[in-house]
Amino acid sequence: MTGRWVEFTGAGEPFRLRTAQVRTLLPGEVLVRNRYTTLCGSDLHTFCGVRQEVCPTVLGHEIAGEIVALHPSHSGLDSRGEELVAGSWITWSVFASDPQSKHALQGMPQKGEGLFKYGHAKVEGEEVFHGGLAEYCILKPHTAILLLPDFLPLPVAATLNCAIATVAGAMRLAGNVQGKRVLITGMGLLGITCAAMCKDAGATWVVAADVSDARLKKATGFGADETRLLDGDTPALLSEKADVVFDMSGAADAMEWGIDCLGIGGRAVWAGAVFKGRRLQLDAEKVVRNLLTIQGIHNYNYDDFAYALDFMKRNWNRYPFGEVVEKEFTLEQTQQAFEYAIQHKPLRVGISI
Amino acid sequence: MTGRWVEFTGAGEPFRLRTAQVRTLLPGEVLVRNRYTTLCGSDLHTFCGVRQEVCPTVLGHEIAGEIVALHPSHSGLDSRGEELVAGSWITWSVFASDPQSKHALQGMPQKGEGLFKYGHAKVEGEEVFHGGLAEYCILKPHTAILLLPDFLPLPVAATLNCAIATVAGAMRLAGNVQGKRVLITGMGLLGITCAAMCKDAGATWVVAADVSDARLKKATGFGADETRLLDGDTPALLSEKADVVFDMSGAADAMEWGIDCLGIGGRAVWAGAVFKGRRLQLDAEKVVRNLLTIQGIHNYNYDDFAYALDFMKRNWNRYPFGEVVEKEFTLEQTQQAFEYAIQHKPLRVGISI
Repeated sequence: MTGRWVEFTGAGEPFRLRTAQVRTLLPGEVLVRNRYTTLCGSDLHTFCGVRQEVCPTVLGHEIAGEIVALHPSHSGLDSRGEELVAGSWITWSVFASDPQSKHALQGMPQKGEGLFKYGHAKVEGEEVFHGGLAEYCILKPHTAILLLPDFLPLPVAATLNCAIATVAGAMRLAGNVQGKRVLITGMGLLGITCAAMCKDAGATWVVAADVSDARLKKATGFGADETRLLDGDTPALLSEKADVVFDMSGAADAMEWGIDCLGIGGRAVWAGAVFKGRRLQLDAEKVVRNLLTIQGIHNYNYDDFAYALDFMKRNWNRYPFGEVVEKEFTLEQTQQAFEYAIQHKPLRVGISI
Repeated sequence: MTGRWVEFTGAGEPFRLRTAQVRTLLPGEVLVRNRYTTLCGSDLHTFCGVRQEVCPTVLGHEIAGEIVALHPSHSGLDSRGEELVAGSWITWSVFASDPQSKHALQGMPQKGEGLFKYGHAKVEGEEVFHGGLAEYCILKPHTAILLLPDFLPLPVAATLNCAIATVAGAMRLAGNVQGKRVLITGMGLLGITCAAMCKDAGATWVVAADVSDARLKKATGFGADETRLLDGDTPALLSEKADVVFDMSGAADAMEWGIDCLGIGGRAVWAGAVFKGRRLQLDAEKVVRNLLTIQGIHNYNYDDFAYALDFMKRNWNRYPFGEVVEKEFTLEQTQQAFEYAIQHKPLRVGISI
């Protein structure tokens, strides 16, 4: 069997649609027919050359698909014990790693040994189908798989295994936000999802901050009670201190301002800083005297992934998650899809495969 | 009844031994005859003008003493329900605050409403006896009191309610250190106590770092498995990454180096930065990708205070805590005590009252 895939050879070089043989499954593997891929911010960073991948590669890691076949040695069950068969629609963790390795046992499987990440691996020999911009994906052993409910639209399902699950990880670090005041900086998909998750979890007041008025408008639909435009000058502090601040922007200015907005015992959770930026200027005395906590989250663990799906089951039509994909393309239109995303900065573009 | 007290009117001005009337107790208060006070780093900072107190004031807040009288409305019980009577030897929290206020209910009584701190208050009218450099101290309502065991030497007992309890707070933030690798920067009393507490709690390997060789030698006696001299140049990283790093120095260089020494999922607990210093340069991407946590601790809560006493009961003669006070003075010799402390940098000087 052959399948089509989109080759990426480096920033500035055009995508090329190619065809390759889909190799035989190895023990524990699952063959998936990719059905929908959304382009994540880090795909765009790679496209622009802000971050590097080992090339040639297949980009795209926010994927939903349909099982074609399971190797006979696979348990045939998803992470929650639900039966998986050919034809099951699934989402899967963006990473696979050894569940018995130190970091995995410490609740950080995303940093476990033998780490493999979909949409981030080199195409080599017959190892081609491991990204979202292709017709197929071969899931490695120890990939967390979750069965998708029928009612969840594909463009929503595609975002679960990166953006939504990462926000779920950030929520875990933040602890119980019930009755709390929350500030979120950066209103991309992570930021708006965070607003909705905070409201879902009982936060009293959610302030959304961004440099873009258009994005702030969207944030309101996702539960933000108040918006704050960060217009370049040093922004004023919030009228009331925040208990928790999430940074989804990765901008040093935003993270510094966020820390300044925290009250005594406040907690900053940073998820956005996954690219090179200037170093933060941090007043350690303030961290000490105000009993502050700063935590970084990158990707997520299995519990976060399950939380992301449960959250979306409850909330996909309570908040306009169905409008997150603002324009849809085909695999052949990958180049246009990236260019559109860079130019128009939609929350997501989708690739229907 | 009158008592002697040592007046501090500002950095560079000499201490003056004075006498004042001990006022009548108000509801909930306890009158204590101070017996021993150790000079904390922040007393020295105030003496040098690095930090400010509202003057005139009575410095000294690491105190142990003997109950003279309890107001009839006082429960007559310490924080653990042990009976308090005239003649009971006690230690007490460096702060008193409203236990029903928001921060107190959130586990941060040291930031609660109506906060009062011993050794940090202005002498005004008949409000004189609220510090350690005096014969008496009047304990406010909602001061946590702990009965001292007979066997604990006074110079050790005096350090409990500031240095030792603050380290207990840092340990709480660090979580379970059993089986972990720990780095501690700053080998003053907090640092060496932290080394001993980490070993007591089952840490596998404790690295003590300081700019002073003499202090590193002491650290070895307090459980450090390895020492690292920070000699001004950018120090090399540890040969193996640390799970937890405690900063007890307050030095930006040390905190930055400490973060660099942390492994995936590592945790930095900062307690030393209680004075103005340069801002830290922090790489947010590292915090995010390495899933790091940074937490500040200032003072402590009631559980930490109790942990400090329990720790010291078990360990005061397993580690050389009896040698922490390197020279002893009388109340009349307060000026010499401060000058000695500044010049010789002992872990502590003691004032026997």
